[in-house]
Amino acid sequence: MATEVLTPVRPASRQEEFGALYARIQQFYAHQMQLFDDHDAERWAGTFTGDAVFVVPTLDEPVRGRAALAANVRRNRIQQERSGEQLRHWIGMLDVRPQPDGTLRTRAYALVYATPRGGESRVSRVCVLEDVLVRTRGKWRTRSRLVTRDDLALAAASAA
Amino acid sequence: MATEVLTPVRPASRQEEFGALYARIQQFYAHQMQLFDDHDAERWAGTFTGDAVFVVPTLDEPVRGRAALAANVRRNRIQQERSGEQLRHWIGMLDVRPQPDGTLRTRAYALVYATPRGGESRVSRVCVLEDVLVRTRGKWRTRSRLVTRDDLALAAASAA
Amino acid sequence: MATEVLTPVRPASRQEEFGALYARIQQFYAHQMQLFDDHDAERWAGTFTGDAVFVVPTLDEPVRGRAALAANVRRNRIQQERSGEQLRHWIGMLDVRPQPDGTLRTRAYALVYATPRGGESRVSRVCVLEDVLVRTRGKWRTRSRLVTRDDLALAAASAA
Repeated sequence: MATEVLTPVRPASRQEEFGALYARIQQFYAHQMQLFDDHDAERWAGTFTGDAVFVVPTLDEPVRGRAALAANVRRNRIQQERSGEQLRHWIGMLDVRPQPDGTLRTRAYALVYATPRGGESRVSRVCVLEDVLVRTRGKWRTRSRLVTRDDLALAAASAA
Repeated sequence: MATEVLTPVRPASRQEEFGALYARIQQFYAHQMQLFDDHDAERWAGTFTGDAVFVVPTLDEPVRGRAALAANVRRNRIQQERSGEQLRHWIGMLDVRPQPDGTLRTRAYALVYATPRGGESRVSRVCVLEDVLVRTRGKWRTRSRLVTRDDLALAAASAA
Repeated sequence: MATEVLTPVRPASRQEEFGALYARIQQFYAHQMQLFDDHDAERWAGTFTGDAVFVVPTLDEPVRGRAALAANVRRNRIQQERSGEQLRHWIGMLDVRPQPDGTLRTRAYALVYATPRGGESRVSRVCVLEDVLVRTRGKWRTRSRLVTRDDLALAAASAA
Protein backbone atom coordinates (compact mmCIF):
# COMPACT_ATOMS: atom_id res chain seq x y z
CA MET A 1 0.00 0.00 0.00
CA ALA A 2 1.19 3.53 -0.76
CA THR A 3 2.53 5.56 2.15
CA GLU A 4 0.11 8.37 2.83
CA VAL A 5 1.69 11.73 3.45
CA LEU A 6 -0.38 13.99 5.66
CA THR A 7 -0.88 17.47 4.27
CA PRO A 8 -2.70 20.38 5.90
CA VAL A 9 -6.49 20.18 5.86
CA ARG A 10 -8.66 23.09 4.79
CA PRO A 11 -8.82 25.83 7.43
CA ALA A 12 -11.48 25.27 10.07
CA SER A 13 -13.36 28.40 9.03
CA ARG A 14 -13.79 27.07 5.49
CA GLN A 15 -15.01 23.77 6.89
CA GLU A 16 -17.57 25.57 9.01
CA GLU A 17 -18.75 27.64 6.08
CA PHE A 18 -19.31 24.44 4.12
CA GLY A 19 -21.14 22.96 7.09
CA ALA A 20 -23.45 25.95 7.29
CA LEU A 21 -24.07 25.83 3.55
CA TYR A 22 -24.72 22.09 3.48
CA ALA A 23 -27.26 22.32 6.29
CA ARG A 24 -28.96 25.26 4.62
CA ILE A 25 -29.33 23.33 1.37
CA GLN A 26 -30.72 20.29 3.20
CA GLN A 27 -33.25 22.55 4.90
CA PHE A 28 -34.05 24.09 1.51
CA TYR A 29 -34.86 20.72 -0.06
CA ALA A 30 -36.86 19.57 2.98
CA HIS A 31 -39.02 22.67 2.72
CA GLN A 32 -39.30 22.53 -1.08
CA MET A 33 -40.35 18.87 -1.14
CA GLN A 34 -42.86 19.29 1.68
CA LEU A 35 -44.50 22.19 -0.18
CA PHE A 36 -44.63 20.04 -3.34
CA ASP A 37 -46.23 17.07 -1.61
CA ASP A 38 -48.74 19.33 0.10
CA HIS A 39 -49.63 20.87 -3.31
CA ASP A 40 -48.80 24.35 -2.03
CA ALA A 41 -48.42 25.58 -5.60
CA GLU A 42 -47.48 29.24 -5.16
CA ARG A 43 -45.06 28.79 -2.29
CA TRP A 44 -43.43 25.85 -4.04
CA ALA A 45 -43.00 27.87 -7.22
CA GLY A 46 -41.43 30.60 -5.05
CA THR A 47 -38.53 28.27 -4.24
CA PHE A 48 -37.51 28.57 -7.91
CA THR A 49 -36.14 31.65 -9.63
CA GLY A 50 -38.45 33.58 -11.92
CA ASP A 51 -36.68 32.20 -14.99
CA ALA A 52 -36.28 28.62 -13.71
CA VAL A 53 -36.23 25.68 -16.11
CA PHE A 54 -37.46 22.29 -14.92
CA VAL A 55 -36.81 19.21 -17.06
CA VAL A 56 -38.42 15.94 -16.08
CA PRO A 57 -38.98 12.93 -18.35
CA THR A 58 -42.68 12.57 -17.53
CA LEU A 59 -43.43 15.98 -19.06
CA ASP A 60 -43.21 16.44 -22.81
CA GLU A 61 -41.27 19.67 -22.61
CA PRO A 62 -39.36 21.76 -20.06
CA VAL A 63 -41.45 23.78 -17.61
CA ARG A 64 -40.33 27.42 -17.59
CA GLY A 65 -41.07 30.03 -14.92
CA ARG A 66 -43.11 30.15 -11.76
CA ALA A 67 -46.57 30.38 -13.28
CA ALA A 68 -46.03 27.20 -15.28
CA LEU A 69 -44.44 25.45 -12.27
CA ALA A 70 -47.39 26.33 -10.05
CA ALA A 71 -49.89 25.22 -12.69
CA ASN A 72 -48.17 21.86 -12.76
CA VAL A 73 -48.60 21.43 -9.00
CA ARG A 74 -52.28 22.29 -9.27
CA ARG A 75 -52.67 19.55 -11.90
CA ASN A 76 -50.93 17.12 -9.54
CA ARG A 77 -53.33 18.08 -6.77
CA ILE A 78 -56.38 17.30 -8.90
CA GLN A 79 -54.91 13.98 -10.05
CA GLN A 80 -54.08 12.92 -6.52
CA GLU A 81 -57.44 13.94 -5.14
CA ARG A 82 -58.95 11.61 -7.74
CA SER A 83 -56.54 8.76 -7.15
CA GLY A 84 -56.59 9.14 -3.36
CA GLU A 85 -52.85 8.57 -3.35
CA GLN A 86 -50.41 10.58 -1.22
CA LEU A 87 -46.96 11.06 -2.73
CA ARG A 88 -43.82 11.87 -0.75
CA HIS A 89 -40.69 13.12 -2.48
CA TRP A 90 -37.51 12.37 -0.64
CA ILE A 91 -34.02 13.71 -1.41
CA GLY A 92 -30.85 12.01 -0.25
CA MET A 93 -27.20 11.40 -0.99
CA LEU A 94 -26.95 15.13 -1.54
CA ASP A 95 -23.71 16.19 -3.21
CA VAL A 96 -23.25 19.97 -3.00
CA ARG A 97 -20.59 21.67 -5.15
CA PRO A 98 -20.05 25.42 -4.78
CA GLN A 99 -19.07 26.97 -8.13
CA PRO A 100 -16.64 29.83 -8.74
CA ASP A 101 -19.53 32.06 -9.91
CA GLY A 102 -21.34 31.72 -6.55
CA THR A 103 -23.94 29.25 -7.75
CA LEU A 104 -24.23 25.72 -6.40
CA ARG A 105 -24.46 22.55 -8.38
CA THR A 106 -26.17 19.69 -6.59
CA ARG A 107 -26.62 16.06 -7.57
CA ALA A 108 -28.86 13.93 -5.37
CA TYR A 109 -31.07 10.90 -5.39
CA ALA A 110 -34.81 11.45 -5.30
CA LEU A 111 -37.29 8.82 -4.25
CA VAL A 112 -41.03 8.99 -4.59
CA TYR A 113 -43.16 7.01 -2.16
CA ALA A 114 -46.84 6.51 -2.90
CA THR A 115 -49.50 5.55 -0.39
CA PRO A 116 -53.12 4.86 -1.35
CA ARG A 117 -55.69 5.67 1.32
CA GLY A 118 -56.12 2.53 3.38
CA GLY A 119 -53.53 0.70 1.28
CA GLU A 120 -49.89 -0.28 1.26
CA SER A 121 -47.07 2.19 0.68
CA ARG A 122 -44.61 1.51 -2.09
CA VAL A 123 -41.54 3.01 -3.72
CA SER A 124 -42.99 4.56 -6.82
CA ARG A 125 -39.91 5.97 -8.57
CA VAL A 126 -36.17 6.28 -8.13
CA CYS A 127 -34.67 9.36 -9.77
CA VAL A 128 -31.50 11.42 -9.95
CA LEU A 129 -31.91 15.17 -9.50
CA GLU A 130 -29.37 17.73 -10.77
CA ASP A 131 -29.96 21.33 -9.78
CA VAL A 132 -28.32 24.68 -10.20
CA LEU A 133 -29.10 26.82 -7.15
CA VAL A 134 -28.59 30.57 -6.89
CA ARG A 135 -28.99 32.93 -3.96
CA THR A 136 -31.47 35.70 -4.68
CA ARG A 137 -33.03 38.07 -2.15
CA GLY A 138 -31.20 36.26 0.66
CA LYS A 139 -32.52 32.82 -0.18
CA TRP A 140 -31.33 29.87 -2.19
CA ARG A 141 -33.58 29.00 -5.11
CA THR A 142 -33.52 26.46 -7.92
CA ARG A 143 -32.62 28.01 -11.27
CA SER A 144 -32.56 24.77 -13.20
CA ARG A 145 -33.50 21.19 -12.48
CA LEU A 146 -32.90 18.06 -14.49
CA VAL A 147 -34.59 14.90 -13.25
CA THR A 148 -33.75 11.50 -14.72
CA ARG A 149 -35.68 8.36 -13.82
CA ASP A 150 -33.90 5.06 -13.33
CA ASP A 151 -36.68 3.08 -14.98
CA LEU A 152 -36.42 5.16 -18.16
CA ALA A 153 -32.63 5.17 -18.35
CA LEU A 154 -31.37 4.08 -21.76
CA ALA A 155 -27.88 3.44 -20.46
CA ALA A 156 -26.00 3.83 -17.20
CA ALA A 157 -25.21 7.51 -16.78
CA SER A 158 -21.76 8.37 -15.51
CA ALA A 159 -21.19 10.68 -12.58
CA ALA A 160 -20.36 14.27 -13.48
CA MET B 1 -40.33 37.68 -15.01
CA ALA B 2 -39.96 40.02 -12.03
CA THR B 3 -36.66 41.78 -11.60
CA GLU B 4 -34.98 40.36 -8.54
CA VAL B 5 -33.43 42.91 -6.21
CA LEU B 6 -30.56 41.54 -4.16
CA THR B 7 -30.84 42.25 -0.47
CA PRO B 8 -28.32 41.37 2.26
CA VAL B 9 -28.28 37.75 3.38
CA ARG B 10 -28.27 36.77 7.04
CA PRO B 11 -24.88 37.34 8.66
CA ALA B 12 -22.46 34.42 8.24
CA SER B 13 -22.40 33.78 11.99
CA ARG B 14 -26.16 33.23 12.03
CA GLN B 15 -25.83 30.86 9.08
CA GLU B 16 -23.18 28.87 10.92
CA GLU B 17 -25.29 28.69 14.07
CA PHE B 18 -28.13 27.26 12.01
CA GLY B 19 -25.72 24.80 10.40
CA ALA B 20 -24.54 23.60 13.80
CA LEU B 21 -28.10 23.29 15.03
CA TYR B 22 -29.33 21.45 11.95
CA ALA B 23 -26.51 18.91 12.17
CA ARG B 24 -27.13 18.41 15.88
CA ILE B 25 -30.81 17.69 15.26
CA GLN B 26 -29.99 15.22 12.48
CA GLN B 27 -27.59 13.45 14.83
CA PHE B 28 -30.31 13.49 17.50
CA TYR B 29 -32.83 11.74 15.25
CA ALA B 30 -30.25 9.24 14.00
CA HIS B 31 -29.46 8.26 17.56
CA GLN B 32 -33.09 8.24 18.69
CA MET B 33 -34.28 6.06 15.80
CA GLN B 34 -31.39 3.59 16.19
CA LEU B 35 -32.20 3.17 19.87
CA PHE B 36 -35.85 2.59 18.98
CA ASP B 37 -35.10 -0.04 16.33
CA ASP B 38 -32.68 -1.78 18.70
CA HIS B 39 -35.39 -1.84 21.40
CA ASP B 40 -33.12 0.02 23.83
CA ALA B 41 -36.15 1.07 25.87
CA GLU B 42 -34.59 3.13 28.67
CA ARG B 43 -32.09 5.02 26.58
CA TRP B 44 -34.73 5.72 23.93
CA ALA B 45 -37.12 7.05 26.56
CA GLY B 46 -34.25 9.26 27.79
CA THR B 47 -34.31 11.14 24.48
CA PHE B 48 -37.74 12.48 25.51
CA THR B 49 -38.46 14.93 28.31
CA GLY B 50 -39.95 13.59 31.50
CA ASP B 51 -43.36 15.03 30.61
CA ALA B 52 -43.26 14.13 26.91
CA VAL B 53 -46.46 13.38 24.99
CA PHE B 54 -46.34 11.01 22.02
CA VAL B 55 -49.35 10.78 19.71
CA VAL B 56 -49.40 8.10 17.03
CA PRO B 57 -52.47 6.74 15.23
CA THR B 58 -51.68 3.08 15.93
CA LEU B 59 -52.06 3.64 19.68
CA ASP B 60 -55.48 4.30 21.15
CA GLU B 61 -54.36 7.16 23.32
CA PRO B 62 -51.35 9.46 23.76
CA VAL B 63 -48.32 7.99 25.51
CA ARG B 64 -47.19 10.23 28.39
CA GLY B 65 -43.82 10.21 30.14
CA ARG B 66 -40.72 8.07 29.99
CA ALA B 67 -41.99 5.02 31.84
CA ALA B 68 -44.89 4.62 29.43
CA LEU B 69 -42.64 5.30 26.42
CA ALA B 70 -40.15 2.64 27.55
CA ALA B 71 -42.94 0.14 28.21
CA ASN B 72 -44.09 0.63 24.66
CA VAL B 73 -40.66 -0.22 23.27
CA ARG B 74 -40.53 -3.37 25.39
CA ARG B 75 -43.86 -4.43 23.88
CA ASN B 76 -42.43 -3.81 20.39
CA ARG B 77 -39.43 -5.96 21.24
CA ILE B 78 -41.60 -8.91 22.22
CA GLN B 79 -43.78 -8.55 19.13
CA GLN B 80 -40.80 -8.41 16.82
CA GLU B 81 -39.05 -11.32 18.45
CA ARG B 82 -42.20 -13.32 17.70
CA SER B 83 -42.64 -12.05 14.14
CA GLY B 84 -38.92 -12.26 13.33
CA GLU B 85 -39.22 -8.94 11.56
CA GLN B 86 -36.66 -6.15 11.86
CA LEU B 87 -38.04 -2.61 11.58
CA ARG B 88 -36.00 0.45 10.63
CA HIS B 89 -37.35 3.93 11.20
CA TRP B 90 -35.94 6.54 8.90
CA ILE B 91 -36.34 10.32 9.13
CA GLY B 92 -35.84 12.66 6.19
CA MET B 93 -36.84 15.95 4.61
CA LEU B 94 -36.22 17.43 8.03
CA ASP B 95 -37.54 20.98 8.37
CA VAL B 96 -36.18 22.66 11.52
CA ARG B 97 -37.77 25.89 12.76
CA PRO B 98 -36.27 27.61 15.82
CA GLN B 99 -38.99 29.31 17.88
CA PRO B 100 -38.73 32.60 19.79
CA ASP B 101 -39.08 30.70 23.12
CA GLY B 102 -35.94 28.62 22.44
CA THR B 103 -37.77 25.45 21.45
CA LEU B 104 -37.59 23.90 18.01
CA ARG B 105 -40.44 22.79 15.85
CA THR B 106 -39.59 20.10 13.34
CA ARG B 107 -41.65 18.55 10.56
CA ALA B 108 -40.16 15.57 8.77
CA TYR B 109 -41.07 12.49 6.81
CA ALA B 110 -40.70 9.15 8.57
CA LEU B 111 -40.46 5.85 6.75
CA VAL B 112 -40.61 2.42 8.27
CA TYR B 113 -38.88 -0.45 6.50
CA ALA B 114 -39.63 -4.00 7.53
CA THR B 115 -37.47 -7.03 6.82
CA PRO B 116 -38.48 -10.57 7.72
CA ARG B 117 -35.62 -12.93 8.51
CA GLY B 118 -34.62 -14.56 5.24
CA GLY B 119 -37.27 -12.57 3.36
CA GLU B 120 -37.70 -9.46 1.26
CA SER B 121 -37.57 -5.94 2.66
CA ARG B 122 -40.49 -3.62 2.06
CA VAL B 123 -41.65 -0.11 2.86
CA SER B 124 -44.06 -0.71 5.69
CA ARG B 125 -45.36 2.78 6.41
CA VAL B 126 -44.95 6.38 5.29
CA CYS B 127 -45.59 8.95 8.01
CA VAL B 128 -45.21 12.62 8.82
CA LEU B 129 -43.62 13.46 12.16
CA GLU B 130 -44.09 16.77 13.96
CA ASP B 131 -42.00 17.35 17.06
CA VAL B 132 -41.40 20.03 19.62
CA LEU B 133 -37.82 19.76 20.87
CA VAL B 134 -36.40 21.45 23.94
CA ARG B 135 -32.87 21.61 25.29
CA THR B 136 -32.63 20.25 28.83
CA ARG B 137 -29.44 19.37 30.68
CA GLY B 138 -27.35 20.27 27.61
CA LYS B 139 -29.22 17.95 25.25
CA TRP B 140 -32.08 18.27 22.84
CA ARG B 141 -35.07 16.10 23.72
CA THR B 142 -38.54 15.54 22.28
CA ARG B 143 -41.25 17.17 24.37
CA SER B 144 -44.10 16.31 22.06
CA ARG B 145 -44.51 14.18 18.96
CA LEU B 146 -47.42 13.87 16.58
CA VAL B 147 -47.17 11.13 13.96
CA THR B 148 -49.66 10.91 11.10
CA ARG B 149 -49.74 7.97 8.68
CA ASP B 150 -50.32 8.51 4.98
CA ASP B 151 -52.44 5.37 4.67
CA LEU B 152 -54.80 6.57 7.38
CA ALA B 153 -55.09 10.16 6.14
CA LEU B 154 -58.69 11.27 5.67
CA ALA B 155 -57.71 14.27 3.61
CA ALA B 156 -54.54 15.91 2.32
CA ALA B 157 -53.00 17.87 5.20
CA SER B 158 -51.63 21.28 4.36
CA ALA B 159 -48.12 22.35 5.26
CA ALA B 160 -47.77 24.43 8.41
CA MET C 1 -41.42 13.39 36.78
CA ALA C 2 -37.80 14.10 37.66
CA THR C 3 -36.85 17.74 38.10
CA GLU C 4 -34.56 18.68 35.28
CA VAL C 5 -31.59 20.80 36.33
CA LEU C 6 -30.21 22.94 33.55
CA THR C 7 -26.46 22.67 33.15
CA PRO C 8 -24.29 24.60 30.68
CA VAL C 9 -24.42 23.33 27.10
CA ARG C 10 -21.28 22.68 25.13
CA PRO C 11 -19.62 25.91 23.98
CA ALA C 12 -20.97 27.26 20.70
CA SER C 13 -17.62 26.77 18.98
CA ARG C 14 -17.67 23.05 19.76
CA GLN C 15 -21.22 22.81 18.42
CA GLU C 16 -20.18 24.53 15.21
CA GLU C 17 -17.20 22.21 14.81
CA PHE C 18 -19.52 19.24 15.13
CA GLY C 19 -21.87 20.84 12.61
CA ALA C 20 -19.06 21.26 10.11
CA LEU C 21 -17.89 17.71 10.66
CA TYR C 22 -21.35 16.20 10.37
CA ALA C 23 -22.02 18.00 7.08
CA ARG C 24 -18.65 16.96 5.75
CA ILE C 25 -19.36 13.31 6.53
CA GLN C 26 -22.78 13.48 4.90
CA GLN C 27 -21.18 14.97 1.79
CA PHE C 28 -18.54 12.20 1.94
CA TYR C 29 -21.15 9.44 1.91
CA ALA C 30 -23.21 11.14 -0.81
CA HIS C 31 -20.14 11.28 -3.03
CA GLN C 32 -18.97 7.76 -2.15
CA MET C 33 -22.37 6.16 -2.81
CA GLN C 34 -22.87 8.03 -6.10
CA LEU C 35 -19.46 6.83 -7.31
CA PHE C 36 -20.39 3.27 -6.33
CA ASP C 37 -23.73 3.32 -8.12
CA ASP C 38 -22.11 4.82 -11.22
CA HIS C 39 -19.48 2.04 -11.15
CA ASP C 40 -16.66 4.57 -11.02
CA ALA C 41 -14.32 1.91 -9.66
CA GLU C 42 -11.04 3.82 -9.22
CA ARG C 43 -12.52 6.98 -7.75
CA TRP C 44 -14.73 4.96 -5.43
CA ALA C 45 -11.75 2.94 -4.22
CA GLY C 46 -9.96 6.25 -3.60
CA THR C 47 -12.53 7.09 -0.91
CA PHE C 48 -11.03 4.23 1.14
CA THR C 49 -7.59 4.14 2.73
CA GLY C 50 -4.92 2.02 1.07
CA ASP C 51 -5.24 -0.62 3.77
CA ALA C 52 -9.04 -0.54 4.05
CA VAL C 53 -11.00 -3.63 5.06
CA PHE C 54 -14.57 -4.08 3.80
CA VAL C 55 -16.74 -6.79 5.31
CA VAL C 56 -20.12 -7.51 3.76
CA PRO C 57 -22.15 -10.71 4.15
CA THR C 58 -22.66 -11.25 0.41
CA LEU C 59 -18.92 -11.72 -0.11
CA ASP C 60 -17.21 -14.84 1.20
CA GLU C 61 -14.30 -12.98 2.71
CA PRO C 62 -13.26 -9.42 3.58
CA VAL C 63 -12.13 -7.21 0.70
CA ARG C 64 -8.75 -5.64 1.45
CA GLY C 65 -7.19 -2.63 -0.23
CA ARG C 66 -8.10 -0.40 -3.14
CA ALA C 67 -7.25 -2.76 -5.99
CA ALA C 68 -9.59 -5.43 -4.62
CA LEU C 69 -12.28 -2.84 -3.88
CA ALA C 70 -12.11 -1.47 -7.43
CA ALA C 71 -12.19 -4.98 -8.92
CA ASN C 72 -15.38 -5.61 -7.01
CA VAL C 73 -17.05 -2.54 -8.51
CA ARG C 74 -16.02 -3.62 -12.01
CA ARG C 75 -17.69 -6.99 -11.37
CA ASN C 76 -20.85 -5.17 -10.25
CA ARG C 77 -20.81 -3.11 -13.43
CA ILE C 78 -20.71 -6.21 -15.63
CA GLN C 79 -23.48 -7.90 -13.64
CA GLN C 80 -25.72 -4.86 -13.81
CA GLU C 81 -25.13 -4.31 -17.51
CA ARG C 82 -26.36 -7.88 -18.00
CA SER C 83 -29.33 -7.58 -15.64
CA GLY C 84 -30.28 -4.08 -16.83
CA GLU C 85 -30.92 -3.11 -13.23
CA GLN C 86 -29.84 0.19 -11.70
CA LEU C 87 -28.97 0.09 -8.01
CA ARG C 88 -28.98 3.10 -5.68
CA HIS C 89 -27.31 2.95 -2.27
CA TRP C 90 -28.74 5.34 0.25
CA ILE C 91 -27.33 6.18 3.70
CA GLY C 92 -29.41 7.64 6.51
CA MET C 93 -29.85 7.91 10.25
CA LEU C 94 -26.14 8.72 10.33
CA ASP C 95 -24.68 8.61 13.83
CA VAL C 96 -21.19 10.21 13.91
CA ARG C 97 -18.96 9.68 16.95
CA PRO C 98 -15.57 11.41 17.06
CA GLN C 99 -13.00 9.25 18.87
CA PRO C 100 -10.16 10.42 21.13
CA ASP C 101 -7.60 9.20 18.56
CA GLY C 102 -8.98 11.54 15.85
CA THR C 103 -10.84 8.84 13.94
CA LEU C 104 -14.61 8.77 13.54
CA ARG C 105 -16.93 5.89 14.17
CA THR C 106 -20.16 6.00 12.23
CA ARG C 107 -23.24 3.80 12.39
CA ALA C 108 -25.91 4.34 9.78
CA TYR C 109 -28.70 2.62 7.93
CA ALA C 110 -28.11 1.73 4.31
CA LEU C 111 -30.86 1.02 1.84
CA VAL C 112 -30.47 -0.40 -1.62
CA TYR C 113 -33.10 0.43 -4.24
CA ALA C 114 -33.21 -1.55 -7.47
CA THR C 115 -34.88 -0.45 -10.69
CA PRO C 116 -35.10 -2.66 -13.76
CA ARG C 117 -35.15 -0.82 -17.09
CA GLY C 118 -38.80 -0.16 -17.89
CA GLY C 119 -39.87 -1.83 -14.64
CA GLU C 120 -40.90 -1.03 -11.10
CA SER C 121 -38.49 0.15 -8.43
CA ARG C 122 -38.25 -1.76 -5.20
CA VAL C 123 -36.37 -1.77 -1.89
CA SER C 124 -33.81 -4.46 -2.46
CA ARG C 125 -31.99 -4.58 0.88
CA VAL C 126 -31.96 -2.92 4.28
CA CYS C 127 -28.54 -2.89 5.97
CA VAL C 128 -26.64 -1.39 8.86
CA LEU C 129 -23.26 0.12 8.04
CA GLU C 130 -20.50 0.62 10.62
CA ASP C 131 -17.43 2.52 9.47
CA VAL C 132 -14.18 3.77 10.90
CA LEU C 133 -13.18 6.94 9.05
CA VAL C 134 -9.77 8.58 9.15
CA ARG C 135 -8.54 11.84 7.70
CA THR C 136 -5.62 11.34 5.34
CA ARG C 137 -4.20 13.90 2.92
CA GLY C 138 -6.88 16.38 3.96
CA LYS C 139 -9.81 14.08 3.21
CA TRP C 140 -11.93 11.69 5.19
CA ARG C 141 -11.68 8.09 3.99
CA THR C 142 -13.13 4.77 5.11
CA ARG C 143 -10.57 2.58 6.85
CA SER C 144 -12.95 -0.19 7.75
CA ARG C 145 -16.54 -1.03 6.94
CA LEU C 146 -18.82 -3.67 8.36
CA VAL C 147 -22.16 -4.15 6.63
CA THR C 148 -24.89 -6.32 8.15
CA ARG C 149 -28.08 -7.17 6.29
CA ASP C 150 -31.41 -7.25 8.10
CA ASP C 151 -32.63 -10.25 6.10
CA LEU C 152 -29.60 -12.31 7.14
CA ALA C 153 -29.63 -11.30 10.83
CA LEU C 154 -29.64 -14.28 13.19
CA ALA C 155 -30.70 -12.18 16.13
CA ALA C 156 -31.47 -8.56 16.85
CA ALA C 157 -28.16 -6.71 17.20
CA SER C 158 -27.90 -4.25 20.03
CA ALA C 159 -26.81 -0.67 19.54
CA ALA C 160 -23.17 0.11 20.28
